[in-house]
Amino acid sequence: MSEKTSHFSDRLIAAIKAKGSPICVGLDPQLAHIPEFIKGPFEAKKAKSFDAASEAIVEFNKGIIDAVHDLVPVVKPQFAFYVQYGFAGVWAFEETCKYAQEKGLLVIADAKCNDIGSTAEAYSSAFLGETELFGEKVSPMGCDAVTVNPYLGYDGIKPFLTACKDKGKGIFVLVKTSNPSSGDLQDRDLKDGMKNYELIAHFLESWGADEIGENGYSSVGAVVGATYPAELQKLRRLMPHTFFLVPGFGAQGGTGSTVKAAFNKDGYGAIINSSRGIIFAWEKEKDERTYATAARAAVLQMKKDLGTC
Amino acid sequence: MSEKTSHFSDRLIAAIKAKGSPICVGLDPQLAHIPEFIKGPFEAKKAKSFDAASEAIVEFNKGIIDAVHDLVPVVKPQFAFYVQYGFAGVWAFEETCKYAQEKGLLVIADAKCNDIGSTAEAYSSAFLGETELFGEKVSPMGCDAVTVNPYLGYDGIKPFLTACKDKGKGIFVLVKTSNPSSGDLQDRDLKDGMKNYELIAHFLESWGADEIGENGYSSVGAVVGATYPAELQKLRRLMPHTFFLVPGFGAQGGTGSTVKAAFNKDGYGAIINSSRGIIFAWEKEKDERTYATAARAAVLQMKKDLGTC
Repeated sequence: MSEKTSHFSDRLIAAIKAKGSPICVGLDPQLAHIPEFIKGPFEAKKAKSFDAASEAIVEFNKGIIDAVHDLVPVVKPQFAFYVQYGFAGVWAFEETCKYAQEKGLLVIADAKCNDIGSTAEAYSSAFLGETELFGEKVSPMGCDAVTVNPYLGYDGIKPFLTACKDKGKGIFVLVKTSNPSSGDLQDRDLKDGMKNYELIAHFLESWGADEIGENGYSSVGAVVGATYPAELQKLRRLMPHTFFLVPGFGAQGGTGSTVKAAFNKDGYGAIINSSRGIIFAWEKEKDERTYATAARAAVLQMKKDLGTC
Repeated sequence: MSEKTSHFSDRLIAAIKAKGSPICVGLDPQLAHIPEFIKGPFEAKKAKSFDAASEAIVEFNKGIIDAVHDLVPVVKPQFAFYVQYGFAGVWAFEETCKYAQEKGLLVIADAKCNDIGSTAEAYSSAFLGETELFGEKVSPMGCDAVTVNPYLGYDGIKPFLTACKDKGKGIFVLVKTSNPSSGDLQDRDLKDGMKNYELIAHFLESWGADEIGENGYSSVGAVVGATYPAELQKLRRLMPHTFFLVPGFGAQGGTGSTVKAAFNKDGYGAIINSSRGIIFAWEKEKDERTYATAARAAVLQMKKDLGTC
C-alpha cells in the first residue's frame, strides 16, 4: 500500500468516531416502496421504463443520504435491488455510490461476489478497482468495500486482497448469515470438531493477517448475522482482528442487546446494518413526504437502542 | 407451470439433440483480447469509454454467436466480465443474451447469485423473471437459467425455484468447483461421514425433486468442475436426476476423457463449458480477422474431443 493510502479498517474506525455511531444504512430500494411524489414525475416524463425507475431510485437515495450522512459512517447498497432494473438500475447503483462518497460516507457494495481467477479479478475491478480500457485504467464503481462468499475457498478471496493491499479497500466475507436456513451448510459439524462457519472464521483470520491496520483490525471483515447471538459471541472470540458487518437488525429481529456481542472491549469491531427499518420508516407514519425525516428519526432511535459505541 | 411452458431441462435436452453436442460456449469478453479491427472503430468514435468497450463487446459476441449457433445448444455469459465495464457493460450483457436467444440459443447467466428473501427474489427477477415497474411487470434480462451459490442454504435457492416452476427456467447450483482451492470448504469431511460437496449434492436432489421434466432431469442443476474427475464420477452417482454444468474444460485442464463421467448412461445429463479456448482461439493463429472461424473450428475440435453425446 502506498504511504498515502490508509487501511480500510482504519478509515472505517475514523468514520465511526467522527459520526459517533457504528450504523450502516442499507440502501435497498424497491420501486413499490418509494413515495409517489418522487416516482410520479419520473413516470410522467419517461413512462413505465427502467430509466424512470432508476432516476426515481437515485432521487430517493439522495434524500436518504442527505438526511443521515452526519449520523452514520457507512452505507451498503445491495446490488440485487438495482440490477433488477437492468443496466439502468446499475447506473442508479453507480450514482448512489458516488453521491454517498461525495457526502463523506464509506460505501460497501453488497454483491456477495464469488468466483475465481480472472473472473474474480473482474469483480474486484468492477466494485473496488479499475478496469483496463483501451490501454488506460478507469474505475467503474469505486466502492470502498464489497461482500464476498467463501464457498470457492482462497481462490475466490485472493484477487480482492490485492485491492485491499494496493488501494486501501476492504471485503466482508460471509461467515454466519442471518437467515433461518443459514445452518443448512454453515452449522454442520466437521469431523475435526469445528462447525463450517468456525472453519471459515479460522480461514478469515489467516486471509486477513497481512491487512491489519493501525487500530489492530484487518481490512478483511466478516458478515455475521444479528439473529444468532450465541454464534456472534463465539465468532467474536475466534476473530479478534476481524471487523463484523452485522445484518439482521430490526426487521429480521436483531436488537441492541443481541448485537452487543459483536463488539470488542475497545468498543469497535462491528458495524450494524439496518435497511428497510430506516429507508422505509415513513411507511409507519403513512406520510410519504416525511420519508427523509422518518429515516433520520429511525437512525437516531437505532443509535439509542445500540447505546454509545 | 402452465401447459405451454416446458421444463428448462426438457428444453435443454431438445437443444442438445438438435445441435448434436452438449457444448456450452462461455462468453467472457475482455477488451484486451478483442481484435483491434472490431474495437478500434468504437474507440475512434467514442474515445476510451465504457460505452465504446461495451459496443465492441456486443459486436465481438455477435460474431461468435453467428459462428457457433448451429453447433451448440447454449451459451454462458459470465456477468463479472460485463459489470467490470459499469452499467454500459451490463447493457452489453443484456444485448448479448437477447441476440443469443434470437439465434435459437439457451442462455445461462453465470452470476453465482447468493442472497435471501426479497434480495434473492430481486436477483431472480433480474436474471430469470420480471420486475414490478409502476404496476406492470417487465423482464430485465430474460435469461433461461442462472448459476447460484449454496452457502446460505435453502433460503438462497427458494426464490429461484419459483422461476423454475412458473416460467420454465433453470438454475445451476455450485457443488464442486473447478479451481485449485475449491477443497478449502467443499472437500471437508463432515462428522457424519460425508464431505461438504456431497451434502450439497444431497440437498440438490431434494431441492430439485419437484422440477423434474419428461426426460427425468430436474431444472435444478449442479456446477461440477471438469478438473476433479473422481468427484465428478461420485457426484454423477449421487445426483442421477441432476444436469451438470461442467466448467474447467480446455484452458483449466479438463479433457474429453475427464468429463466422460459427467454423463449418464442415456448420454445426457451434462453440458461442458469452454470459454477462452473458443472465443479467443484466434490468438493461437495470430490473425484477428479469423476470430469467428477460429471459434467455430475450436467448437468442432471440442465436439470431436467429446465424442458423440
